[in-house]
Order: sequence, then structure tokens, then C-alpha cells
Amino acid sequence: MSEALMQNTTQQIIVGLGERSYPIDIGAGLLSRTPLFEQLPQQILLLSNTIVEPLYGDKVRAQLQHHTVVTHLIEDGEGAKSFANYEAVMDTLIRHNFNRDCAIIALGGGVVGDLAGFVAATYQRGVAFYQIPTTLLAQVDSSVGGKTAINHAGGKNLVGAFYQPRAVLIDTDCLTTLNARDYACGLAEVVKYGIIADAEFFAWLEAHQNELNQRDAAALTYAIQRSCEIKAEVVAADEREQSVRALLNLGHTFGHAIEAAHYESWKHGEAVAAGTIIAAYLMHQQDRLSSNDFTRIETLLQQLNLPVRAPQMPLERWQTFMQRDKKVQAGVVRLVLPTAIGQACLEPWSDWQALGTAIAAMSHPDAHSPLL
Amino acid sequence: MSEALMQNTTQQIIVGLGERSYPIDIGAGLLSRTPLFEQLPQQILLLSNTIVEPLYGDKVRAQLQHHTVVTHLIEDGEGAKSFANYEAVMDTLIRHNFNRDCAIIALGGGVVGDLAGFVAATYQRGVAFYQIPTTLLAQVDSSVGGKTAINHAGGKNLVGAFYQPRAVLIDTDCLTTLNARDYACGLAEVVKYGIIADAEFFAWLEAHQNELNQRDAAALTYAIQRSCEIKAEVVAADEREQSVRALLNLGHTFGHAIEAAHYESWKHGEAVAAGTIIAAYLMHQQDRLSSNDFTRIETLLQQLNLPVRAPQMPLERWQTFMQRDKKVQAGVVRLVLPTAIGQACLEPWSDWQALGTAIAAMSHPDAHSPLL
Repeated sequence: MSEALMQNTTQQIIVGLGERSYPIDIGAGLLSRTPLFEQLPQQILLLSNTIVEPLYGDKVRAQLQHHTVVTHLIEDGEGAKSFANYEAVMDTLIRHNFNRDCAIIALGGGVVGDLAGFVAATYQRGVAFYQIPTTLLAQVDSSVGGKTAINHAGGKNLVGAFYQPRAVLIDTDCLTTLNARDYACGLAEVVKYGIIADAEFFAWLEAHQNELNQRDAAALTYAIQRSCEIKAEVVAADEREQSVRALLNLGHTFGHAIEAAHYESWKHGEAVAAGTIIAAYLMHQQDRLSSNDFTRIETLLQQLNLPVRAPQMPLERWQTFMQRDKKVQAGVVRLVLPTAIGQACLEPWSDWQALGTAIAAMSHPDAHSPLL
Repeated sequence: MSEALMQNTTQQIIVGLGERSYPIDIGAGLLSRTPLFEQLPQQILLLSNTIVEPLYGDKVRAQLQHHTVVTHLIEDGEGAKSFANYEAVMDTLIRHNFNRDCAIIALGGGVVGDLAGFVAATYQRGVAFYQIPTTLLAQVDSSVGGKTAINHAGGKNLVGAFYQPRAVLIDTDCLTTLNARDYACGLAEVVKYGIIADAEFFAWLEAHQNELNQRDAAALTYAIQRSCEIKAEVVAADEREQSVRALLNLGHTFGHAIEAAHYESWKHGEAVAAGTIIAAYLMHQQDRLSSNDFTRIETLLQQLNLPVRAPQMPLERWQTFMQRDKKVQAGVVRLVLPTAIGQACLEPWSDWQALGTAIAAMSHPDAHSPLL
């Protein structure tokens, strides 16, 4: 399998959502392709941030010479998903007389994509939206699912809409400029797809960890393609997150607790990796995940430079954070739990003693920072 | 027909939009019905304004005693559809820990409904939305169509979403407190439905103008029901306003020009009435609308206390405002034109000489205010 798949060509997958279906093109050098996207309208807003735009802005605009392109930049980081920036982008669109037949192109990571998508969902009640995700996390996560949002002081992503892009373009060359931590964070989500849905893909990741760590374009194209395919299947079955879509949250309930307690030192993907290990260990303890599968998960995450131990915290602290999870129903935490490589389930969980044991076993006094 | 229809009972119509279909209940005294709506969740935000809430707020909350109800009030008037109020309503929801399983109820006119709907469309990517429109205009216009929005300094309704309510409750008793001008404005839209789509309904309006002017509950129930039915048919055929939905804009291209030039003195419904007369006269001039039909339209609007002459403005001024219309395509104005009572079409129109003649004939030097 892997040889044919590893040829360095452009791959296209279709996210099947009826009349809202759209293509994701993945490959090396796609930013230089003409046209960048099919059937773009005349008026285009390019939304990016002050880190990404200097790297790729000119390249994108060079493909759009026959269009009217206005570039709007936001600052880097989660704080940019604000009401103030939302209104500022609207100001830009209106100041330049953008009409309904315009397009918003997001060039950047998840923050740029979430804000741009929410603007596209709500400018004149909805205009065309295109994504060029430039981080691995955004490529394998935000490209599929239609979640757009901004943050509120009271919590992340509290204001937003489900809104699908018209097309997504993923140029693996963008990953060459990504820092090591953010790159590893993207791989945490890639491993997640293998664990919850595809044992064969997990084995492929094990076999190609060197290529992945070297950011080999062909390996990345396949890893991104398969990740998007798995997420697309799950989302197509459950667009509004009523059921199976929750499986995409493997490691996230624990991970969100780590992020909340240590937001300055832990990144999302790192917290998800440590959370995945806790979920896997809990199942192993209960004889519902084999020792061999547990070890394979732990080993792969380590080899992809991800932390596999959580910071030590009192159980009550975990409990407080985990009770805020959106999957809580009638006060009971619901966990995504791996029962084999390639298989997971969503289960209400009230045995906090067993949970405490698993958390303690998978925590480490020196893991207050994942970089140790 | 009219006698059976005029019985003072509750009428229900269903707006058919597949899985997003919803009922509109219309009748006298519905605000005292228990339950107000079927299957309301526990957490409810009641959004209203400082004029309407003192009149009906207690009545609504009395039907929701087993729910957690938070009331958020905005000021009266179009200025309340602001970014600042949008963010303030979000603050209220988050401060009270509203989760995804909550509902927003709009109690008020079009401004309250538009803001509440946009909040519902975007809080946590969409929560349940219910409408209790209290003005005639909101009852026959905003109840159907799913348009939600806020304003921007650069223009009305530039930020918003298409989002359908779960149910609409119309209590005709609310109209007893409405001022005469706003009441007549609602009737302008009612007459519009007759002109564009239903000659029989138009004749019914002619026959029942006295009952309508007296705000008779049974006559109102039928007039609102038929208006909503007609709008629902049009919207079901064209939810995203790609084609026939434009017919609902009869009188609006001229009307928006009058509103833009005289926003302090002309209300929307008044401007639509004067705009409808210009469109009708243009067709009459071109021998495409009979003299009799033109006179019937003019007479009915007059008898319902609506203006039938526009303020005098230089043709270039009309042109400037009309070119901003959203129906303009490739620089050419497209007009909704009545060709008979019960029938209208959308047509590109570039003969500004004929237009100028019709506008001049239907303008009056003393019509700078519609109240003359």
C-alpha cells in the first residue's frame, strides 16, 4: 500500500455533505497552482495574521492578479478570535463595498480559519468561504467540520456557526516553516484518527514515523489525506455533533483540564496526547484495552515528540475542570475511550476512584511543562 | 368564504422547510395559552424592548413559571440592532451559564426579532429560537423567512444569518396597543401580498377594510394568516432569495430611496406604499396594468391610511439610491412590477425616461412627510 500512496502527487478528497459538499486538495507546492480555486468571484478578502502573511501572502496574491484582493491581518494567537476583530473584519468588508458575491479566503492556522469562517457565515447572511490552512493542526482538524467561532471572556468558541467552506487547499510545503511544538501538536490529532477509527492507518503511522518527523511531503500528504477522510466520514454521519462526532474528542476531556490548569505551558495537541494516554490507561486497567495496544499508543506518541504524562493535580481539580466539558449530561462526565487500536466508544463515567488511579499513574511530578 | 374564515379561533399554518419546518399560531389571546410553546427547554432568554416588555412581559413569564427565565431588554428603535447590543446579549447568556440546550424568545417587533434571531443563530453555533411578534409588520413579515441580522454603520442588515424559528406565536390582541402609523405600515405589507400573489385575498381586503381599520381580531387573524401563507409559499420555493423571493420586494426599490432621502419622516411601510403606487403606475403607463387595477390598488392603500404619493426629488437622486438596491445586476436596476392584481414579475429596467415620468406623476410637492 504505502509505496503507491507515497508518490508525491496532489490528492483530492470530497467532504460529502449533500449540496454543501466540497473538495480538499492536498499536496506539495499547491500555493503556486493556477487557479488557486475554481470559480472565485471578483471581490476577495484575504484574512491572515502577522506571522503567516509575510511568509505566504505574496504567493497567494500572485495567483489572484485578476481579482480585487483586500488583505486584512490579525495578530497571532487565540486572543485574536475576539468580538473586536470580528467587527473590524466586517468594517473592512463594508468599507471596500464588498457585496454578497464575494469570497473570504483564510490563510493561517485555526484562529484565522475560525474567525474567517464566522465572518463568511454572517456577512450579508453568508458569503463564499475558502480555506488555506497553514498549520498541521488546522489542516487535519479545521479543514473538515464546518465549525466557525470567536471567543468570549466567558469561554472559547461560545459564539459561532456551522458553516462549510467551498474548498480547502492544503500545501504541505507550508509545514516546513512550522515550529517543532506546533508540528508535533498536529501529529497528536493525526494519531487520534488512527486510534478511534483505523488500525491500518495507525500501523502506517508507526511504519512512517521517521518520514513524518522529517516532514516528508509524500508522507504528510497521505497522513493529512487519511485524517481528513476519517474526520469527513464522522462529520458526514453527524454534522451537528449529536452522536458519533463526539469520538473526535478522544483525549480532549482530560486535555482540556490540563490546558485550563496550565494554559501558559501546555499546548492543545500536547494536552490531547497526555489525555489520550490517560483514557488508554483507564481502559487497560479495566481489561478493555490490551497491554500491547496501550504500549503501541504510548510509543508512537513519544516517537512523534509528544508528552505521555500529565502534570500532577489533586483529583478534585481534575473533577472541577472535567465537569465543565460540553459532553457532560445530567452532571455525569462522558468519556471517549479506546477499546482497541482503531476502535473507541463514548461512555458515561462516574467511577472517580478508578479515574483517579489512572490519572495518578499517568501523571508525573515533573510534567508541569510538556517540554521536560 | 369570509364568514367561516372570520370566526374568532386560533389558526395554525406550517412553514414547510423540510426538517426546519415550523408552525405559526395566530389568534386573539394566545399570550395566555399554556403552554406558550411545545417542548421549551429549561433555560430561556426573553429578549424584548423597553416599550413592549412593560406591556406583555409579565404575561409571557406567567406561562413560563417552571422554567429559568432571564429577561434582557434593549432600547426601542432600529439603532438597537447594534454590534454592542449583540455582544451584550451574548454576555447575558454566558453570565447566566446558558448551555446549548436553551431557547431565545423574541417578544417585540422586527428589531427585537432580528437581533434575537441572530443571537440564537450564533450562540454556541445555534440554539432554539421562538418568536412572539407584537407589531403587525413583524407578524406578517419577520415571522416567515428566517432572516436575522444586525446593522452596521455602513448599512442595515449587513451582518446576519438565515436561521429559522422553532415556532411563532401571534396574538392579535397585541395590536390593540400599536400606534396608528405602525399599524398602517403593517397593512402596507398585507396589501402587497394580495397584489403580488392573490387576487381573491386582495378583494377580501377591499371588502373588510372597515374591520381591519377597527383592528377586529377575526379579520386580523385571517389577514395575518393569509399573508404568512403567501410568504411561506414564496420562501419555501426560494429560501435563499435566488429567484421568486424577490417579488416580496414590490414597492421596496422605490421605497428604500424614499426612506434613504427622508428617513426622519417616512416609515418603511409608508415608503413601500408610495413605492408600490409608482411601480403600478409605471405598468399602467406601459399598458401592462389595467386602469381599473391601478385604481383599486390606490384606493385600498388610501382607505387603509397609507400615503399614495412620494416626496418630490430630482431623478438623479432617485437613481443614486435605487442603484444601491441589492437586486441591481451588472449595474441595471431590477424592478418588481405588478401586471394585474394577484400577479407580478421581476424585470431589469433601463428606461429611465419612462421611470422618471412615472415617478413625477406619482410624486407631490407636499409629500415631504407622509402624514399630510
